[in-house]
Amino acid sequence: MSLSRINHIGIAVSDLEKAVSTFKKLFGVDPEYETLEDRGLRVAIFRLENVRVELTSPIREGTAIDNFLKKRGDGIHHLAFETNDIESTLERLKKEGFEVIDGPREGAEGYLVAFLHPRTTNRVLIEVVSGGRASH
Amino acid sequence: MSLSRINHIGIAVSDLEKAVSTFKKLFGVDPEYETLEDRGLRVAIFRLENVRVELTSPIREGTAIDNFLKKRGDGIHHLAFETNDIESTLERLKKEGFEVIDGPREGAEGYLVAFLHPRTTNRVLIEVVSGGRASH
Repeated sequence: MSLSRINHIGIAVSDLEKAVSTFKKLFGVDPEYETLEDRGLRVAIFRLENVRVELTSPIREGTAIDNFLKKRGDGIHHLAFETNDIESTLERLKKEGFEVIDGPREGAEGYLVAFLHPRTTNRVLIEVVSGGRASH
Repeated sequence: MSLSRINHIGIAVSDLEKAVSTFKKLFGVDPEYETLEDRGLRVAIFRLENVRVELTSPIREGTAIDNFLKKRGDGIHHLAFETNDIESTLERLKKEGFEVIDGPREGAEGYLVAFLHPRTTNRVLIEVVSGGRASH
C-alpha cells in the first residue's frame, strides 16, 4: 500500500484570526473550527474541492505547534496523504528506512494517523492517514 | 473568483535522484521528468489521484530554486491552487493587499501561473494557476 491521495495541508500560524482573514480572501469560503484540548491547538479548516487546508495555532505553550512556530515562524507545517491500510503501509515504510513518529493513533474525524520524521523525507513532515468519515 | 482546488505541491530538493527514490517508496508510482532550461530546473512529477507532487531541483546556480535551497535546504517550496479566471482573481487579490510576483505568465502544460509573495500569505509561497491540459 502506498500514499495515493492528498488528504490535507497543515499550516502553522501564530495568529489564527488574522490568518483566517487572509485565507478566506484566497479560498472564498468560511472555515470550520475545531479545538483539540489534549493536543493544545485550535484549527481552522478550509474545505476546498479536493483538499482541506488546516490553519493550526497553539492554545498553550510547549505544544508541538508552539515549538514549531517559535523555531520557524508561520508556514507550512505538514502534508497529509491517504493510504487504504495504514498498518501495512507503515510496516513497509519502516522496513525501507523511514522513521515513524507519533502513531498510528486516532486523529480527528475518525482517521488513524502517524507522522514520518522529516529527516527521512527531505525535510517534509508527512502525515499518513487512513479511514475517516470525511470525503476529503 | 477564488482558489478552489489544489493543483500541485512543489518540493525543493538538492539531489533529485535521491529524492525520487525516497518519494517513489512513499507514493508507489514512477514520476515523469521535465526539464525547464529557461528556468534552470529539472522536475520529477508524481501524479497522485487528486494532486501532483513536483520535486524540483536546480540545473544551474543562481536560479530561484537554487537560492531557496542554499538558504533553507530541502523542503516544501510552494502550494499551487487553481482558479477559473486568473486575471480577475489576481485583480481582486491585489486590491485586498496580496502581492503578486512573477506573473501571470505561461507555465508548464498550458497553465497560466502567478505567485503570491509569502509575506502576504503567512510565509506560504502560493502559486495561482488556471487553464491547463492536465486533469490535475
